[in-house]
This record gives sequence, structure tokens and C-alpha cells, in this order.
Amino acid sequence: MTRALVRLVLPDVQDLLREGTADDVAAALAPFHPADVAELIGQLDDEQAAQLVLGLEPQKRTDVFELLEVPLAARLLERIGPKELAPTVAAMASDDRADLVAALPDALEAQVMAAMPAEDREEALELAGYPEGTAGAIMTADYVHLSPDETARDAIEHIRQVARKRETIYATYVVDQDERLLGAVSLETLILAPPDETLREIMIPPIYGKVDDDQEAVVEKLRHYDFLALPIVDAAGIMQGIVTYDDAYDVAEEEATEDAHLMGGVSPLPAPYFETSLPNIVRARALWLSILFFTELFGGSILRQFEHTLERVVALVFFLPLIIASGGNSGAQSATLVIRGLAVGDVEPKDVWRIVRRELASGLTLGALLGLYGIGVATLWGLDDAPKIAVVVLVTLVAVVVGGSLLGSLMPLLMVRLKIDPAITSSPLVTCLVDVLGILVYVLVAGAVFPPPA
Amino acid sequence: MTRALVRLVLPDVQDLLREGTADDVAAALAPFHPADVAELIGQLDDEQAAQLVLGLEPQKRTDVFELLEVPLAARLLERIGPKELAPTVAAMASDDRADLVAALPDALEAQVMAAMPAEDREEALELAGYPEGTAGAIMTADYVHLSPDETARDAIEHIRQVARKRETIYATYVVDQDERLLGAVSLETLILAPPDETLREIMIPPIYGKVDDDQEAVVEKLRHYDFLALPIVDAAGIMQGIVTYDDAYDVAEEEATEDAHLMGGVSPLPAPYFETSLPNIVRARALWLSILFFTELFGGSILRQFEHTLERVVALVFFLPLIIASGGNSGAQSATLVIRGLAVGDVEPKDVWRIVRRELASGLTLGALLGLYGIGVATLWGLDDAPKIAVVVLVTLVAVVVGGSLLGSLMPLLMVRLKIDPAITSSPLVTCLVDVLGILVYVLVAGAVFPPPA
Repeated sequence: MTRALVRLVLPDVQDLLREGTADDVAAALAPFHPADVAELIGQLDDEQAAQLVLGLEPQKRTDVFELLEVPLAARLLERIGPKELAPTVAAMASDDRADLVAALPDALEAQVMAAMPAEDREEALELAGYPEGTAGAIMTADYVHLSPDETARDAIEHIRQVARKRETIYATYVVDQDERLLGAVSLETLILAPPDETLREIMIPPIYGKVDDDQEAVVEKLRHYDFLALPIVDAAGIMQGIVTYDDAYDVAEEEATEDAHLMGGVSPLPAPYFETSLPNIVRARALWLSILFFTELFGGSILRQFEHTLERVVALVFFLPLIIASGGNSGAQSATLVIRGLAVGDVEPKDVWRIVRRELASGLTLGALLGLYGIGVATLWGLDDAPKIAVVVLVTLVAVVVGGSLLGSLMPLLMVRLKIDPAITSSPLVTCLVDVLGILVYVLVAGAVFPPPA
Repeated sequence: MTRALVRLVLPDVQDLLREGTADDVAAALAPFHPADVAELIGQLDDEQAAQLVLGLEPQKRTDVFELLEVPLAARLLERIGPKELAPTVAAMASDDRADLVAALPDALEAQVMAAMPAEDREEALELAGYPEGTAGAIMTADYVHLSPDETARDAIEHIRQVARKRETIYATYVVDQDERLLGAVSLETLILAPPDETLREIMIPPIYGKVDDDQEAVVEKLRHYDFLALPIVDAAGIMQGIVTYDDAYDVAEEEATEDAHLMGGVSPLPAPYFETSLPNIVRARALWLSILFFTELFGGSILRQFEHTLERVVALVFFLPLIIASGGNSGAQSATLVIRGLAVGDVEPKDVWRIVRRELASGLTLGALLGLYGIGVATLWGLDDAPKIAVVVLVTLVAVVVGGSLLGSLMPLLMVRLKIDPAITSSPLVTCLVDVLGILVYVLVAGAVFPPPA
């Protein structure tokens, strides 16, 4: 079932919640996958959502709670009460639980923590201690660890015992008595191995991340090796948790959104569009708009110095939008190509000269193309001084498209050198800088072609 | 090991390739993960890459070949010769092999196909028949299928037999004698089930995709359920293959790049930045630059109609870059927020009125903010007619920021209705339209405040 189908059954579920008993609700939802129940809950108002959650049988309730958007899960926990939901919270995967607890109001957080078994509480506190954006903050502590002297047969039996409480049993890790990571064994290897072989003989050397690694780096490693999970160790090599492939999806999506927002000239929003308050959206946009406004002000100042030429040859003004936009657009294009290339690893900072050569070549070609259009327009419009204006427009367009392409492609590389996210050289920022550059070039070229009367 | 480390060992490997024997190379690379060997090969020239491939032992060679960029793998196959690599190609996963064969020159493709076992050849032809961008084109035929009457114990034994030739053994599928999909069983379920239970008793109803589904839809389903694999069936319900979580990574990355390019005003490139020929890059950019140029031309035409007012009040020109940029930037911001919201599912087309209300509110606030800046600038510059110009600038800025926000947020929604990728309302396109809108508003407001002398 997918989003479209959830919308289809939504009215029936709402009727049932109004008229049926908790058992009816549980029965009706039994065949639904937890991911779909979570989707459904997201479409209900909080009261009905709470009613539905209470109708679910315990295991399913936990599965669903792990999949709810964190703010919604926190609201439901507050509405239903931490006592009623204590078993649900206790049974949640440790990473999802840590995220949920962190989102609760302080008083409620204390109650939820108090209702947890001591061991879980300690784990929750530890996970909550890792800064946002690190491997520690996204990992789960629910992994399978085995000892190097176990045989494959024993290991499978061991896995069978603990499976219910583990995020995955397909990737398992061999640790020494101090929980130091020694190696990795997949369930596939265990099943194919001779039953009496020990894990020491069949394990592979571990590839791992560190708790304070950037979440992007850890996810890139996971993807590079096509792993289901990556073990995470602390500075002493003691295993602390695993990051799994579904975390990788989430991180990749989060990072792509952050990049898209930066590239669109919006400070990244911490929450989905509709869940961000209006003042926060305005703030995320106002900063950039203000920066861009004052950058653009230089363009106005340059035009002011040029007042007398504009008065004499007012036709130059007609081409201003074209000049400004062409430089800005070509800058945005080059910036996009390089930013995206950096994001997926096709482009590296050391490639700077190759990039300059390429952008110079495409800038010249594209500038010449637009310049020809410009000559055509100057001629068609039948302006006084059309030939002189055509020359100004041609020269300026070639210059701004080349300048825009170079600036657009080099700024992201500069940001990488400065250890700043290259997506911050968002298209609007590049556009604005190239706008000002374009106005400057236009004014200089026009000043040369239309010198002030002696 | 990661990209940085590959770069570290690269010189040593190059020395070895110049001076060592094939055995030395094989020995040196034995501890390297296939993903790292593939990364390494990507850094060598084709001759050394071919030499390295020939030095690998057969199983590793296959693993590495599956991970190479397709154009590189095709070049190596051409250089080394299809006979020498026939066993490697035959052992590749069916989806990777289909991609590779499709990328070969026709004559070579025929040779490679001829060297394949008949069964593999048929499969390759079938997979090659699915159009790019569909589930059929990314699925692999190497999945585990079981019969409903097998017991859990038999199934595990069955999996053990076939594991080496399968993409994953963690997700397995129950089919009838016509290969019709009946249900799904995870290896976890099999291991936890009583050994004598039949698959019919423990399987869950299948959630599946269809061969002609869009690849994005299939990947969304896989992620929604956090599955390791999604079974793919044809119109008759006959199982044809599986799409796995690593395919999901690749598709998500591909789609994010496509969106980023569209949002940056570049037609999506079919290959990485440096592997796209210069003429192709120029073509991908020229189309958009031309469209945007001629859109912007309207702005010039509007200014032409306004020639006499501009001649009288040339100071109005100084604000032109500000007006144009502010509208364009706010439009780009709103477009980005909505496009990204649609991509991750936070925003839906039915939300149009909520979006209009939000964008109206933030547009008014932000427009007023920029308008205040504008009044400040008009005063600071000490222009003749400063109060009148300040009014024109204020009114115009509010109008273009509101107009930009509305246009920017509604255009992606319109595209969804028209079943066009909303990312195509790329920031540059929105920027350009709002530029023209801004010029029009500016001219009208200025015309009202500075009426032509009677």
C-alpha cells in the first residue's frame, strides 16, 4: 500500500474511530504494514491518532511509533501519557527512542526517563550526548555482537535468541571481552560456513566509522561498500553501535534538502515546510534576501556613476535586464554543475584547472551565442546608434557569460578549500555577484563606446 | 578504506603495475575490498587499469567489474577482449551485466552475447528490453524463489545451495509453479520459525512493484517499508526480478542530480561532469540560456515603452537591479521550498491554499522589509524627488516579493498537475518570469507617480 491508498481508506478508518471499539480498530488495521499505519496516523487529527494508537496491539504499536514523524510521536506521547506508553517506549529501537525523548518537553522527558528500565535509561542518555550531525547521533545500540571463539553453529543459535531485540541480524560483529571491535560476519557467511568453524576463522577485518564522524562521511562509507550496516566505534576502538542502510536513506534525504535550500537561497529549515512556523520561514529567507539586496545595491551605485551616459543613450537601459540575467543564469548553471559534481564525487577540488578550461570554453561559446542574439535585437528594435549599441551588448554579453561561468564554477571550489559547504554558493548569491559584475562591465564598455562629450 | 586512502596507495599500485608481475598485483590487492579496487581502477589510465583487472583472481574480478562505472567497464572490455573476460561477464549480476552490454558498441555487444551461456543471453535480452527509468531496467533477476510447501528447514538448505549466485538471500519470495508471486519470507523469519513449518504458514502477503513502474515510484515504496528488496512482477503477476536497497541509493542520487540540474537551469546531463563532452554541456546550457534570454527580452521591451519617463527621472534606473533581483530571489526561495517539499513528500498538490496563505504572509513581511531598505537607500543617496522615488520603490518591492513568492510556489504545483517534473520550474526560470513581472510593476507604479507632462 502506498500514500495514495492510505488516502483511500482514510475515511473508513475515521468512521471506525468515531463509532467502533478499540478491538474493531485493531482488527481492521491488523493486515496493514506498520509503515502504512504510521502514514495513516499522520493524516488524522491528534485525538483520533491517539485513539488509533491505543487500539493497536503492543508489538505493532512499537513498530508504528518508531516510524512516526518525531514531533507527532512526541505530541501523542504527551496526550496519551508516559505511563500508558511506557512499554511502547521501552521496546523502541534505541536510536528512534533517543530522537523521541530529545524532542519532549523537559518535564515529560524526565517522566519518560523515570519509567524506563535503568539499562535503557543509561543508553538513552549516552545516545542523547552525541552532537547532531555525527555518526553517534544516528546510530542504534541494538546490534548483534558475538565472540571470536564461537562456532558458526553457536553464532546462529545465539542470533536466534536475541533477534527480536536487534535492528538487524544480517550484519553481526565480533568483539573481544572489552567490546573492542575485531571483525564482521554476515549472516550469509554464517549460513554458508562449515558449522564448526569459529568466527575468528571466517570473520572479515572490520570497516568502521567513529562516533564523532560526520554523518555524511559515515553514510558515504556505507554506500561505497554497499553495506547493510556500518559498525561505529569510539576513540578506544570499543564498539558503540551501528548505522544501518535505512539511516543512510534518511541522511541522504536530509543532506539533499539542506543543499537544495542553500542553493535556492534559503537557510536550511530544521523541519518540514508546513511544520516550520511562519516567523522561522521568514527568518530563514530574510537573511539571504537582505544579503542579496545589499550586494545588488552596488549595481545601483555603479549605475549612479554612469548617470550622464544613461541620460544621453537611454536605449542602453533596455538591455540592462538581459545583461544582468544572462550573467546570473550562466553563473547559476556553472555553480550547479560543480556543486552537484562535488556532492556525488565526480568533481574534486584538485580539478580546478580542468574546470577553468572547460568553463572558459563553454562560457565563450555561450557568450558568443547570446551576443549574436543581442546584435539581432539591437537591429530589430531599430534604435538610434544601433551598431554602436550592438557592439556594447556583444562585448558585454561575452564578458559576463564567461565571467559568470568562471565565478560560478570556482566559488564552490573555494568554499571546499575554506571547509564551508559548497552549496552555500547558492545560485542566488552567484547570480547577485555576477549581476554586479555585469553592470560594471556594461558601464565600462558603454563608457568607452559612448565617451562623454569633451 | 575510502577515497582519500585510495589516493594514498595509488602511486605504489602504479609502481607495481610498471615493475611487478600479475601475481604481485593480485597479492597486493587481496586485502582490498572490491569497492576500493574499483575506485582505484577509476584513477588509473586505461592501459594500467586493464593490466590490473587481468591480475585479479576470477571472483574478485567479477565483483570489481560490477562496481566499475559503466563507460569504464565497457572500455576495459573492449581493450582486453570479450573472450578473455567471458567468464567475468557471465558471472556478473544480471542487472549490472545488462547495463554493461547495453553500453558496448554493436559489434562488441554481439561478440559478448555470443560468448554467454544461452540462458544468460536470454535473460540479458529480456532485461535490455525494459525502457530506461522503469523498475524493469534496474531490477536484477538473481533472486531466491521458494515453493509454498517447503518447510523452513528445507528453505534454509535450499538458500544455502543457491546463495553464491544470488544478489541477496535475506529477502526471498514464494512463487507457485508458474512463478506467480504468492508471498515474501525474510531469512530472519526462516531462522526464527519452527523448522517444520511450511512457507505457506509463515510468508507475508507480498508488497511489490510492476516492471513498467517508474523507478522513482519503486524506490519510494522500498524506502517507505524499509525493505532490503522489492519484488517486481509483470502484468500477469509473474515474478520477474527484485530491486534492492543499493539500487535505491543509485536511483535517489540520480534523481537528486537531475532535480539539482533542472533547478540550476541546466538540462540534466546523462553522465558525470568531466565525462560529458563540451558540445553536450554547451547544448544542455544553451537551450535554457536562450529561453531565459528571450523571456528577459520582454523586460527590455517594457522598458522601451517607458523611455520618456526614464529620460526624465534617470534615478529610477539605479533601482532597477534591486527590484529585478529581489523579485527573482524571493521567487527562487519559494520555488525551492515547494519543489523540495514535493520531492520528500512534505508538501502535496492539494495543499495549494495553505501554501498561498503562507507565501502571501511571508511575501508581505519580506517585501515590507526590503521596501524599508529601499526607502533608506533613496534617502541616503539624496536624489531629487527622493520621497516620490521612495514610494515607487516601496510599492514595487512589496508587489514583486509577494508576486515572486506566489509565482515561485505555485508554478511547481502547476507542473505536478500537468504531470511534469516540478524541478523544471527551475530557479532561473522563476527568476526570469519574476524579473519581467518586476519591471512591469515598476514601470506602472513609476508611471503613476511620475505622470507624463500634459
